[in-house]
Formats: sequence, structure tokens, C-alpha cells
Amino acid sequence: MDLELALRMCEAALRQAAREGASISVAVVDEGGHLVSFQRMAGARLAGPVLAPAKAYTAVAHGMTTADLGRLAAPGGELHGLAGDRFVCFGGGIPLWADYGEGECVVGGVGVSGGTVAQDVSCAEAAASVWRTR
Amino acid sequence: MDLELALRMCEAALRQAAREGASISVAVVDEGGHLVSFQRMAGARLAGPVLAPAKAYTAVAHGMTTADLGRLAAPGGELHGLAGDRFVCFGGGIPLWADYGEGECVVGGVGVSGGTVAQDVSCAEAAASVWRTR
Amino acid sequence: MDLELALRMCEAALRQAAREGASISVAVVDEGGHLVSFQRMAGARLAGPVLAPAKAYTAVAHGMTTADLGRLAAPGGELHGLAGDRFVCFGGGIPLWADYGEGECVVGGVGVSGGTVAQDVSCAEAAASVWRTR
Amino acid sequence: MDLELALRMCEAALRQAAREGASISVAVVDEGGHLVSFQRMAGARLAGPVLAPAKAYTAVAHGMTTADLGRLAAPGGELHGLAGDRFVCFGGGIPLWADYGEGECVVGGVGVSGGTVAQDVSCAEAAASVWRTR
Repeated sequence: MDLELALRMCEAALRQAAREGASISVAVVDEGGHLVSFQRMAGARLAGPVLAPAKAYTAVAHGMTTADLGRLAAPGGELHGLAGDRFVCFGGGIPLWADYGEGECVVGGVGVSGGTVAQDVSCAEAAASVWRTR
Repeated sequence: MDLELALRMCEAALRQAAREGASISVAVVDEGGHLVSFQRMAGARLAGPVLAPAKAYTAVAHGMTTADLGRLAAPGGELHGLAGDRFVCFGGGIPLWADYGEGECVVGGVGVSGGTVAQDVSCAEAAASVWRTR
Repeated sequence: MDLELALRMCEAALRQAAREGASISVAVVDEGGHLVSFQRMAGARLAGPVLAPAKAYTAVAHGMTTADLGRLAAPGGELHGLAGDRFVCFGGGIPLWADYGEGECVVGGVGVSGGTVAQDVSCAEAAASVWRTR
Repeated sequence: MDLELALRMCEAALRQAAREGASISVAVVDEGGHLVSFQRMAGARLAGPVLAPAKAYTAVAHGMTTADLGRLAAPGGELHGLAGDRFVCFGGGIPLWADYGEGECVVGGVGVSGGTVAQDVSCAEAAASVWRTR
């Protein structure tokens, strides 16, 4: 995960948030789930610095979106009980994939927090699409 | 968040608790969620020093009451899994708003623990109404 | 530890701080080291909500002032290595003693943070003397 | 603490790092010590996402540079034992001051990690000077 690309991903998320009238925090992490870039908009809640990196990490750690993970972690789901302080199991975290010659693998993640869950997902998608079209 | 006002908010919460026959802890935090004032009544449980500040912080961090947050964090809610050591997601935490010229924003919070949840909410409301009529 | 008395102790510490031109946080804890009362003055550092309760707890946990403990925890002292996130080993924490018929024992503590260490000690002493002359 | 300004501060730190041949992480936090912006250069150590925000928070929490704090926290210093997981007590964290009409107060902080301590301090200073000349 390259800083220049991570910054472009953050900007894309912030632009989408402005379009939706949301105030968000956005985090981009590397293949180890460690923070590369973080930005919090004016007026965005203090939960953002906690939840945006945690969603990005969770997406990397499980290799799936936190929205998908939330379905598995719901009561009756096969990962029920997973959600907690470590793993954030609702929408807004998306893993980033790449194939460097050894098959597709997760090489990073993006997490957004601060809007409704639907807004967070939409902003994270905007960031992820910068990755996919890099 | 001014100490003198925070003390008056604590007193209002304690008076309401006495009226309800509850033994509570009450915490007031600033816009960063950091403690300004805390008071624990005789006989109030040891969970109070943990939960009252945590409810106040949670209300600030999410910009909503912990009761409202609890509905979002319940099974089937869009933030299911949010509740944990970090965020307390049941009633008793209330954010405090003010407009210092740049629109309404959260400038502090109050949290109460020790009674039933209904009592905690009622005591936190008594404190918050001191804020609203300051 | 009685809330009414704890509040008077906090007030005494704040008055002493005003006399010294310091901006402090003060915490009073019970015999279990759990918070009874906390107050942070306008302008007092954010370290106060962390350090004032921790000094009060440390004083209770070891049955001595944190200044005395600091001497034991210094390099070459017999408790070297004790200082850390759990125990705060520099001045500003004072245990409170009482004899309820079974000999003197520690029944609470006071901790102050925000000024110089000398100021913190002076403010904590002001609070402790309220206790001793109760 | 404004995001646009925080980003300019991060850029100034990164430019200084490039000049010094260091690979760093830089964090900017608000008056509550909460993250506003974070950037990690390619090749910067994984300690950066831990230490850069922690240095910025520590500088805010104590209202002084982490270098100055380190002198107080050294053996024989009056805050010996302060350093730990919570407060980072060596150079690279700088508080940011402003006077919004009620006297100078700490309104944010910057923290840098990844180079030598001297490099971290130099990069944090580059960021702080953007603040001072805003």
C-alpha cells in the first residue's frame, strides 16, 4: 500500500461524503492491517479515529467486507460472538485485493466511519474503486 | 465545559437520584470525552466509576444518547456488535450541544450509572437540563 | 469515604491550586481505590483525568504517599521497576487513614495532577488535611 | 484543528523527512488528543502508527514537547516513571497553541516517529512551524 495512492483513496472517500452530506473519518491500512493514512473531516464524530482504522483492519483480518462479516456475526450466523472491541462487524470496511503473480491476496483495506452505515459503505466503496482502477 | 457548570449538573443528577431512591455515579466530560467532574453517592456500586464516564464518552463519541445508540447496536440494528469495553450502548449517557457560531456541535456529555437504566436516564436528563438552561 | 467529605477535600485542593496559580485535577478514592469524586479546573491538562485518579489509587494500593513510593521505585531503590501505567510513582498521591476500632488502616486516598510535582503535593496535602480534621 | 491545515502539517513533516533521508509516520491530533490526520511513508516502521499518534497525544495531555517531558521523566527527574504505554516520553511530539480570546491554550498536537529521535523532532518542528505561520 503506497502512501500516494492511500491519500487519493482518502480524498475519494471525503468527496463522496461531501456529496452525501456526511462527516466522516477514513482510514487506509496495509496488508498487515497497520495504518497508512487517516483523515477526519471537520465535525466528524470522535468514534471515527477508533472505528475507521478498526473497520479497515477487520476487513484485512478476515478478507471480506465488514458488512459481509456482520451477516456471519449476527445471532444465528456462524461467527456469532465475533463482534467486539477487536473486530468491527458492520458496514464500512472493505479489503483491497491484488495479484502480484501468486494469486489474488489481500494487500490492504479501507474503513470509513461517521455517517450512516449506508453512507460509510458508499464512501469506502468510492475509496476502493480508486484502488481497483489504479 | 466549565467546572462550575459541571458541578451543578452533577448535583442535579444526585437530587434526581435521591428523589427516585437510587444510588448513582455521575460523570461530566468535555468535547474530547475527557472527565471534568465525577461524583459517586454513598452506597453506589463500583461499576459506576467505570460506566458513568464511559457512557458520557460514548455519547460524545457518537453524538447521540447511549439509549438511541443501544437501539442501533441491538441484534438486527445497523451497528450490532458496537457494544463492548469501549462504547457503552444502553441508556444513561447524553451528549451536550452548543452553537458557538459554527453550527450546533457536541461540546460535552453526561453519564449516569447505578440505578435501573430508566433511573440512570432520568438522572442524566436532570443534569442535561441544567446544561440546556444554562 | 463519604461524598460530602470528598467534595470538601476537592474544594480544598482547588483553593490551594488557585493560591499557587496552578491548574489541577483532583481525585478522591475509597478504600478499594475506586473513584468517589473528581474535579478538573478550567485549563488543566488532559493528563489530569488519567494521573489524578491513578495517584490516589496508587497511594491506597501501597499505603504510602506516591512521593515516598517514588523514592523506593527509583533506580537503586528496592521497588525499582514498579512505576508504570498501573502505579504512578511521583508526588501528588496521599493515602487517608482512619481507626474504626481495629487499628489504623487506609480508608481512601487523594491524588492531584496538573501543576509542578511540588504544587500537586501541596494541593493534595490541603485535601488530606480536611480529612485529618474532619 | 482543521483537516486542511493538518494535511499541510503532515506534508511539511514528510518533506523534512525526505530531506533527512528518514522514513517516518506523522500524526496530527485535536485538543482532545484525537487523531485528525495520519500519514506513513513507504518503508516506515510499523511502530509509527503506534508511536506517532501517542507522541501527539502525550504532547497535548501534558502541554509540553515530549522531549521536555522526557527530561522530567528520566531517572532523577520529577516525573520519573511516567513513561509507559500511555505517555511517550522522548522527542517527536509537539503541542500546538492558540489564543482564541481566553489566553493561550493547547489546541492540538503533532507527533512523528520512524527516524532517529533528532530526525523525528526536526520533522515535527517542520509541521509545527506550518501551524505557527498559518
